[in-house]
Amino acid sequence: MASSLLSRQLTLSVQHSLRLAAPGCRYVSKTAAQPVSEFEYDAPSMKTPVPGPKSKELTRQLGDIQNVGAVNFFCNYEESRGNYLVDADGNRMLDLYTQISSVPIGYNHPALMKAITNPNNLTAFVNRPALGILPPENFPEKLIESLLSVAPAGMTRVQTMACGSCSNENAFKAMFIWYKIKERGASGPSAEEMSSCMINQGPGCPDLSILSFMGGFHGRTMGKCCLATTHSKVIHKLDIPSFDWPIAPFPKLQYPLEQFVRENAQEEARCLEEVEDLIVKWRQKGKPVAGIIVEPIQAEGGDNHASHDFFIKLRNIARKHGCAFHVDEVQTGGGTTGKFWAHEHWGTGDPADIVSFSKKMLTGGYYFKDELQPDKGYRIFNTWMGDPSKNVFLSEVLNVIRRENLLEEVTRSGKALLQGLYELQAQYPHLLSRARGLGTFCAIDARDDVTRDNLILKTRDKGVLLGGCGEMSIRFRPSLVFKEYHAHQFLNIFNDVLAEYK
Amino acid sequence: MASSLLSRQLTLSVQHSLRLAAPGCRYVSKTAAQPVSEFEYDAPSMKTPVPGPKSKELTRQLGDIQNVGAVNFFCNYEESRGNYLVDADGNRMLDLYTQISSVPIGYNHPALMKAITNPNNLTAFVNRPALGILPPENFPEKLIESLLSVAPAGMTRVQTMACGSCSNENAFKAMFIWYKIKERGASGPSAEEMSSCMINQGPGCPDLSILSFMGGFHGRTMGKCCLATTHSKVIHKLDIPSFDWPIAPFPKLQYPLEQFVRENAQEEARCLEEVEDLIVKWRQKGKPVAGIIVEPIQAEGGDNHASHDFFIKLRNIARKHGCAFHVDEVQTGGGTTGKFWAHEHWGTGDPADIVSFSKKMLTGGYYFKDELQPDKGYRIFNTWMGDPSKNVFLSEVLNVIRRENLLEEVTRSGKALLQGLYELQAQYPHLLSRARGLGTFCAIDARDDVTRDNLILKTRDKGVLLGGCGEMSIRFRPSLVFKEYHAHQFLNIFNDVLAEYK
Repeated sequence: MASSLLSRQLTLSVQHSLRLAAPGCRYVSKTAAQPVSEFEYDAPSMKTPVPGPKSKELTRQLGDIQNVGAVNFFCNYEESRGNYLVDADGNRMLDLYTQISSVPIGYNHPALMKAITNPNNLTAFVNRPALGILPPENFPEKLIESLLSVAPAGMTRVQTMACGSCSNENAFKAMFIWYKIKERGASGPSAEEMSSCMINQGPGCPDLSILSFMGGFHGRTMGKCCLATTHSKVIHKLDIPSFDWPIAPFPKLQYPLEQFVRENAQEEARCLEEVEDLIVKWRQKGKPVAGIIVEPIQAEGGDNHASHDFFIKLRNIARKHGCAFHVDEVQTGGGTTGKFWAHEHWGTGDPADIVSFSKKMLTGGYYFKDELQPDKGYRIFNTWMGDPSKNVFLSEVLNVIRRENLLEEVTRSGKALLQGLYELQAQYPHLLSRARGLGTFCAIDARDDVTRDNLILKTRDKGVLLGGCGEMSIRFRPSLVFKEYHAHQFLNIFNDVLAEYK
Repeated sequence: MASSLLSRQLTLSVQHSLRLAAPGCRYVSKTAAQPVSEFEYDAPSMKTPVPGPKSKELTRQLGDIQNVGAVNFFCNYEESRGNYLVDADGNRMLDLYTQISSVPIGYNHPALMKAITNPNNLTAFVNRPALGILPPENFPEKLIESLLSVAPAGMTRVQTMACGSCSNENAFKAMFIWYKIKERGASGPSAEEMSSCMINQGPGCPDLSILSFMGGFHGRTMGKCCLATTHSKVIHKLDIPSFDWPIAPFPKLQYPLEQFVRENAQEEARCLEEVEDLIVKWRQKGKPVAGIIVEPIQAEGGDNHASHDFFIKLRNIARKHGCAFHVDEVQTGGGTTGKFWAHEHWGTGDPADIVSFSKKMLTGGYYFKDELQPDKGYRIFNTWMGDPSKNVFLSEVLNVIRRENLLEEVTRSGKALLQGLYELQAQYPHLLSRARGLGTFCAIDARDDVTRDNLILKTRDKGVLLGGCGEMSIRFRPSLVFKEYHAHQFLNIFNDVLAEYK
């Protein structure tokens, strides 16, 4: 049915988004006359508990093929629209988790449907190039109109990669290469370096390290880079060999931040002191810190915030000790905090040396300063090095963000969401605490992990999809087309759940 | 122009591949009445040296954005067809490198153009799911009709990933988890293991290792897994920290193999002995070998072959010592050797515990045996875990391979290619030696690296795209629609180059 609608779209211009809405769905009230309302549904609609019988049967089938321990339910992406995810059993949920924060402008957005049916784009999907050696002729132009049009301050260079982990892995490689070139000065690598690196030995494979923070999450590849800098959950780490790299404490702040300015400042000072101590210690150990990696908000680790002042001082410490400063915006980037990059909130013109991204950007990759560019080709390389077809979609996403002022929308709906969370934690202090957020990148803590998990499941059965993070936090990760009225829709439903909660 | 052709196709059924051919291009002779001839060009056509002025200008532009040290030239993928890659300057080259062996059935194959314009497929491209938690309802069905329909012997399970390195990284994780679960037996992880892994320490992060072979290439992520097992070129390794993991010698065989059976068998026995010694040594070191990774043909390392007997014995050594056996088919898989997987040539019903793939499979991932499945969800996990839109294309590729008997075609055209290489090395012994290959997965050595690089450039200027590997080898990696007459077309041009070579 939806497919026939979609096929009709092929022969129509894009000015028909109304047709995209599934028949019989009401259109939303005047209070929500935003573009998104034209193609999405107006409310959740639940037919079965989640997962329903069809999802359970499909989970059983997939269980014969791979581990399904993490599968929530199966989705009908054809029928999903905007903020609403439809599952295999026909349940329609307001989605505040959006594929682990990776859906920028909702499901089946007309602008993306138009892009995929544009004849000029077809070959970009059908012919995936080895970008590092044989890029398409429009590649520089596409990078300029997509990724570079939102480049962080001080960065004019970008390298695409296939996923978030690869992006961090390769950003780490870039930092190590930069560090050694800096160390060598004019002279090239020695014969001993050239030979020793082939057997994984020093000096060719030097004993360098990356400083990360407890609670940080930078990917799960076994990479010394990624997994060795990830410290959010046991399940990510157990049984996988790792590294003796420095791990600094991340500030444990008290919320709401404005009420605990002095206490939080002391906590941040303690952590920054520890960072400098670790840099010195590891240098003495003979494992100098080539780079520092940090998330502007620790996401997977529990939505842990720090002040802008903390990050500016951390960035200065990196500069002072000759370490590259790598800001991981894989989850915080793409507009969800109300600015395109979370680090823009710091208000500094030189936020980082490397900024990695993925998820809402639809392609992985990292921006970097000129000095971080490897001296030779093939030093940062793989077969695909990203996927230009994703840049096609990203260009459209950026157009929609600008045309519909989505960053302002995010700020507005984020305020409504956070305000509502404050009210709910005041109303249910025995269940909720520590509401916090920036834009729609919000979170709240439950009493304990069991309560957190129960609240998420009960809310899902009432038609709102949420995600957890950290030990007992609920994270809110709606797409950028999430409006104030979607926030109120969620808050009403969540309030019902809390009221009923025993 | 081509785009208008493509747009016309939107409104047409797929039975019009003739229209896809650029106007004015002749159709190939009776001797080549294969389907591929219907939509591709009939010969190279060179207008400028490569790279031409337009490619040079685009390289300059891209140079402001990223390192372009590896860029050969820019491509016009819209105008490329079948075995012919068209560059930004309008040069049309017979492509025997195919985006580092990652194009399965040529450029703009009608079957893929049909898939991308099929309305039922659109949402798979527009809505990229977090596959590990919210798979699309047709995911099991699509896995069964695509990846599982070509599963290696003894494997009914598959995990998709975004790229080759991620595939090997996660396959390594699976082997480490499997190894530790086996070691623990009934008892779960200890409290000490749970806490120590969060700070990258043992016993939670155990000191396990993976045995790899000198000359092997398994990816470039900084991953202890991938880069630490890659030993093909200095440029891949220099300045990146790595691991004390065992590296075994890979047999250095004499070619043609059938003439040096006894010598080669001795060389292989020496390497296998070394493998067992290393496994014992590393166990004594307290860094037991959890897995062995090997390519059926070392590709990047120089197209180094070993006998079927070698691999079967190696597989038995892995079994004997309780190591998982990981066959990396990222480059050898997908039909290029004349069988769908290179390991099928070994003729054993139990070739491996894990087989990783990417490139021609269009998606990364790995097949694995039941016992290699992690015990819990989220142990092998990331946001995307592949991209279902790639499975849409893979299904079509597999249909074309079956419908057009492409594996037989590959065997036939591979024979023609290798026979021609034998003749050329006999004719130009001062320039060429060691012709070798399986299917179209062929290679030949030049006198030295300078000669190799010159031959590749001179051949390119005459309209054939080749790649290098190892120190002085030329590798041939055509797509599966490469026919005997394409082999002859290449051989004629290469012969001209060699004849002129000073």
